[in-house]
Amino acid sequence: MTAQTEIGSLPTPSLLLDRARLARNAARMRAQAAGLGVSVRPHLKTAKSLDAAAFVLGSPPGPATVSTLKEAEMFGATGITDLLYAVCISPQKLPRVTAMRRRGIDLKIILDSVEAAEAVAQHIAQSGDAVPVLIEIDVDDHRSGVRWDNRETLLRIGRSLTEGGAILQGVMCHSGESYNLHDGEALAAAADLERVRILEAAEALRAAGLPCPVVSVGSTPTALSAKSYDGITEVRAGVYMFFDLVQAGIGVCGIGDIALSVLATVIGHQRDKNWIITDAGWMALSADRGTADQAVDHYYGLVCDADGQPYRDLVVLKANQEHGILAARPGSGANIPELKVGDRIRILPNHACATAAQHDQYHLIEPDNSVSAIWPRFRGW
Amino acid sequence: MTAQTEIGSLPTPSLLLDRARLARNAARMRAQAAGLGVSVRPHLKTAKSLDAAAFVLGSPPGPATVSTLKEAEMFGATGITDLLYAVCISPQKLPRVTAMRRRGIDLKIILDSVEAAEAVAQHIAQSGDAVPVLIEIDVDDHRSGVRWDNRETLLRIGRSLTEGGAILQGVMCHSGESYNLHDGEALAAAADLERVRILEAAEALRAAGLPCPVVSVGSTPTALSAKSYDGITEVRAGVYMFFDLVQAGIGVCGIGDIALSVLATVIGHQRDKNWIITDAGWMALSADRGTADQAVDHYYGLVCDADGQPYRDLVVLKANQEHGILAARPGSGANIPELKVGDRIRILPNHACATAAQHDQYHLIEPDNSVSAIWPRFRGW
Repeated sequence: MTAQTEIGSLPTPSLLLDRARLARNAARMRAQAAGLGVSVRPHLKTAKSLDAAAFVLGSPPGPATVSTLKEAEMFGATGITDLLYAVCISPQKLPRVTAMRRRGIDLKIILDSVEAAEAVAQHIAQSGDAVPVLIEIDVDDHRSGVRWDNRETLLRIGRSLTEGGAILQGVMCHSGESYNLHDGEALAAAADLERVRILEAAEALRAAGLPCPVVSVGSTPTALSAKSYDGITEVRAGVYMFFDLVQAGIGVCGIGDIALSVLATVIGHQRDKNWIITDAGWMALSADRGTADQAVDHYYGLVCDADGQPYRDLVVLKANQEHGILAARPGSGANIPELKVGDRIRILPNHACATAAQHDQYHLIEPDNSVSAIWPRFRGW
Repeated sequence: MTAQTEIGSLPTPSLLLDRARLARNAARMRAQAAGLGVSVRPHLKTAKSLDAAAFVLGSPPGPATVSTLKEAEMFGATGITDLLYAVCISPQKLPRVTAMRRRGIDLKIILDSVEAAEAVAQHIAQSGDAVPVLIEIDVDDHRSGVRWDNRETLLRIGRSLTEGGAILQGVMCHSGESYNLHDGEALAAAADLERVRILEAAEALRAAGLPCPVVSVGSTPTALSAKSYDGITEVRAGVYMFFDLVQAGIGVCGIGDIALSVLATVIGHQRDKNWIITDAGWMALSADRGTADQAVDHYYGLVCDADGQPYRDLVVLKANQEHGILAARPGSGANIPELKVGDRIRILPNHACATAAQHDQYHLIEPDNSVSAIWPRFRGW
């Protein structure tokens, strides 16, 4: 790939990643965390790319978060060894965790039940690997975790772990409910509620004589909206690197910050319906409809011209496997642009994690629309 | 992979494919087409697997349909050479089509505009490759295609192609609107409407002295519901091999015909909410919510026990990237089963094409739950 490659010569659909925006987004999170006095543990589940991880984590690489053991293996093999696997462990996965730890990867796991803590204790008894564990705390009724005020279960888990020989590192949470908010004050309040609640859990452990050095919080919307992280030691977030239409709808980025897009080609029209048909369907975009419940629904994505400038109210209205139907956003009354068969467009994604997952590589694009690098992606578990 | 491998030893999430159901589903379509006197051109976009294609197409392999040039290259290289690329061509893709044709792959393309026909004529003038072309016909106002009764445009396209040196092979259509139906009589009527309308287009070409040997129709729901294919030469369909909850909702298969499922492990609970949390989120299931508008909404999938027996009204209510939340189907009042951390379940997919696309391989399972083979999948364009 030479610097002379232009996006016009790429096959379609192709995944584009704007290097300048990626750099700006990564710097923004570093500055935000530095201002709040916490470290950042970027979540690599969005990028799933060794090159993107190196770009964001620097050298020597800082800590990172992963969503699968495959990610831990892939990133660990390149020297990113301070890793948190942020999905509750199942007993069957423990031998693979220990195999990685024996190869020098400092992999930490999470759990939220006495059952899982007992399985970890049993694994430690058999393997001799004192796996480091964080207890997941549910701070907003969203997904996994011990409720922040369920002191009894929390202490039972903590004691089961320490008596079982695990290294109890602390507590972590994901404030997923922040995805339903859309103004700065509400987001700052959600970040503070997350902080106060996880600290209540941390204090319960400490008051019972259990260790809790790490207090880890996260989600892109709260991380970028927090005013104080007093008592918090680290923040985790992932999608902020690329951003997407959902994050723009929440209000933590602008459309112009979205670094990821899908390059597509016009393949036809239905002129009586004001439809433009392209070769990017859900296989290239994902079936994620994350903006459906936001104030502005972008359907399957917002359409830009070949240079990345958004058209006013032109969206991917419908998506079949390899067909995307472009039309004016319903209710907007917008005119659709004149695009011919063979013309190129770019589509901004609803959800960067899901759209990127449909592709095997990023094409890094520069301000002059040249393609400067190809960054492979991986997937699987 | 020995016959002794059991699904209990697979990592999760893993994609399972029931060989007996696949065989039964493939035989059913062959018998249906034979009864109607047409050939089947299976669509390989659902399977994207050389092994699955060999299983379904037999030896020597019959004709097939593809949705990407990558599929054409992959299947063509294994001797499946009678291929139809069933997405309207864009001019930039033509050199790749001709490169394949020069390697002995009899690849046919489709288009639905004078613009594209002129681009093909120009490509033929430059390359000397008389590409075979079918004109896509819109029979149900669904997606691409020249409207079946738009005789003027149809003849302009046909003349542009034949005068430009292309081999005009005929007409094809996809009756996508059949996905909105759910009873046998309506589906049979849709199949007949498709037949009548595409024949009107074929007759218009023939009456003008243009060739039209091939009349190709398709969609799994109409293909399985048609009572007569008089005048039709071939039928295309893909998802029938695996089936899924959307097809069961349409009524062309039963839940017990679905050959594809995702194996997952319980990783936790929120007992006050009657939630069971597993390690299969949208990354393993896809974000497809295809049953949302059907009479029975399966949310992100219907949950079965480890042997594949469906639980009554247990669905994947929510899906994050690597978390799936199992709960009783809203409104059902069903009890949720007692499942412990580490227990295995299987999830039936809304949309087999989308769920399979999230995985790199199929684990072929036999009636005794042994895993008899791994069939790799590919992806990309």
